[in-house]
Amino acid sequence: MKSWEENVRKVIPYTPGEQPDFPDMIKLNTNENPYPPAPGTLEKIRNMNPEQLRLYPAPGADSLVNALAGYYHLKKEEVFVGVGSDDVLAMAFLTFFQSGKPILFPDITYSFYDVWADLFRIPYECQPLDEQFCIRKEDYLKENGGIIFPNPNAPTGVEMPLADIEEIISGNPDVVVIVDEAYIDFGGTSARELIHKYENLLVVQTFSKSRSMAGMRIGYAFGCPRIIKYLNDVKYSFNSYTMNRPSLEIGLAALEDEEYFQETRQKIMHTRERMKKELAELGFRFADSKTNFLFVTHPEYDAKELFEALKEKHIFVRYFKKPRIDQYLRITIGTDEEMDTLLSFLRSYKK
Amino acid sequence: MKSWEENVRKVIPYTPGEQPDFPDMIKLNTNENPYPPAPGTLEKIRNMNPEQLRLYPAPGADSLVNALAGYYHLKKEEVFVGVGSDDVLAMAFLTFFQSGKPILFPDITYSFYDVWADLFRIPYECQPLDEQFCIRKEDYLKENGGIIFPNPNAPTGVEMPLADIEEIISGNPDVVVIVDEAYIDFGGTSARELIHKYENLLVVQTFSKSRSMAGMRIGYAFGCPRIIKYLNDVKYSFNSYTMNRPSLEIGLAALEDEEYFQETRQKIMHTRERMKKELAELGFRFADSKTNFLFVTHPEYDAKELFEALKEKHIFVRYFKKPRIDQYLRITIGTDEEMDTLLSFLRSYKK
Repeated sequence: MKSWEENVRKVIPYTPGEQPDFPDMIKLNTNENPYPPAPGTLEKIRNMNPEQLRLYPAPGADSLVNALAGYYHLKKEEVFVGVGSDDVLAMAFLTFFQSGKPILFPDITYSFYDVWADLFRIPYECQPLDEQFCIRKEDYLKENGGIIFPNPNAPTGVEMPLADIEEIISGNPDVVVIVDEAYIDFGGTSARELIHKYENLLVVQTFSKSRSMAGMRIGYAFGCPRIIKYLNDVKYSFNSYTMNRPSLEIGLAALEDEEYFQETRQKIMHTRERMKKELAELGFRFADSKTNFLFVTHPEYDAKELFEALKEKHIFVRYFKKPRIDQYLRITIGTDEEMDTLLSFLRSYKK
Repeated sequence: MKSWEENVRKVIPYTPGEQPDFPDMIKLNTNENPYPPAPGTLEKIRNMNPEQLRLYPAPGADSLVNALAGYYHLKKEEVFVGVGSDDVLAMAFLTFFQSGKPILFPDITYSFYDVWADLFRIPYECQPLDEQFCIRKEDYLKENGGIIFPNPNAPTGVEMPLADIEEIISGNPDVVVIVDEAYIDFGGTSARELIHKYENLLVVQTFSKSRSMAGMRIGYAFGCPRIIKYLNDVKYSFNSYTMNRPSLEIGLAALEDEEYFQETRQKIMHTRERMKKELAELGFRFADSKTNFLFVTHPEYDAKELFEALKEKHIFVRYFKKPRIDQYLRITIGTDEEMDTLLSFLRSYKK
């Protein structure tokens, strides 16, 4: 190693799900929405004026912040936006977890949390989920430097009751509690309203899943004006202009078509409930999911083997080679047609 | 202050230039390009398929990385892209300046450097420019934790000879030297080729200025494959997908039209040289600029007063209330028509 390399921040980066690109593939590995974004996005794109691209975007992303505030009946000072919820969460780790005490998150959860903690040299302690893959609220009532968990949790899909979440928030007035609600629109109950009651709460959501815009990189957060101000100060110290002009334009279109949003998320939830029945009949086991994916295991199949067999048919699901979950697969809910193809493969698997 | 606030990273954020929005304004305050992006961007926008927005973009931004590598005759392993050069630089500070020793940069320079250093708690020592606003290379040959400077420097516009830059790089094999070339396409000589000779060099450029795409947020960096790998590891530990699909699509269009690029940058350089003559005739003084702006002072005018007077006429320039430069204004080179309006105001100012 050369001497300049000794001063480099060494990290083991997060590994995103594969992004294969086959014309016939069924892509169920990164929890993308199978339906296109709201039809209004087409119009926004067609009306985009390239001449304006020469000018910096609004550093405060005001149009999008205002639209989110309006949609959720909040003040604009209670809303933060970023380049996907990953950007929002990275900024939040950097901003709020500075005590030197370990932060707490579940042992089975979004696998970016320990990556951010390592990146920013934040100590952490993982709290084991119970045997039913539920978060045990009492694990989060000890001394700590901050708390983060997804609700519903990923990759398990399990929702935590809002009352338990409130107990964690109210039991930790000295630290910031981040509730990562990437999948909340698929049937979960948001902690959003609690921002009016607890200053130490940050709720993070995204356009990537329920609004079919993973390719746009738009995430956002809700909190009291003080917590949002702290987050914005760090954001402005990192990059003045994070949201480019197309994000600001096209993001609006997703919020403007409520009917389409309701229709597509209902469709996904409907397909998910059907899949629960079908997969149970095939002998799969899974915790109850309130997300756009199912986290399944089968007593007779090796998960890795099934993962590879599906891949050969260009059906991509997600496999995590990790303790406790290495016999599970995370399967995104696709269209009914895609699910039928998957089911037909599973019905004949090992027969 | 509440107890949760004690664990918050407190920062004094960078203040970007105003983004006023008057129909009749002449915006010369944030060094944007007065000409629209390459005509091909329109076609890219029209052909963008909203259906694809539901899918995550390529995490490695491969299409844009490959295009940049091709354009500059580099390997793709020698290219990094980010959300504007600010994102690239923020990641670079986080990645490379970890020694605990002070990093070095000029006292008069891009005012984001000390903000990033403060954000990441990196100690720094500012090295004063000489009386002609030139960087003194010998100031950068002492022990340090890393070096960064723009070339040409901003807001002075002064270029440093490549031989001096090479002396700084070769004299500092134990640290990373970042040459921030945001304005290089307006007549400066890039240090790009030196990446093949020095492992410890990172050269940062942007689409915001010379390619008229401040609104797209596309920056990039060149370095040896090792240095780029370190930077990518940190990027992947921060946000897997920083570049959204429109950035990847529209960014290509800017690289594909070489003729337009050459034509517009020549036009700006031509206007700049004319402005040098005109402003000198009006009694303004300035160092020789190799950028798309001039950094001017006038023995008879108070800079702040002139700044306000211009603002009243909706002519926006940049004023920095900082030691040594509080009698200077930074004026972006606009179209010839915009410059004529500015000149005509200046000719009658205080007459």
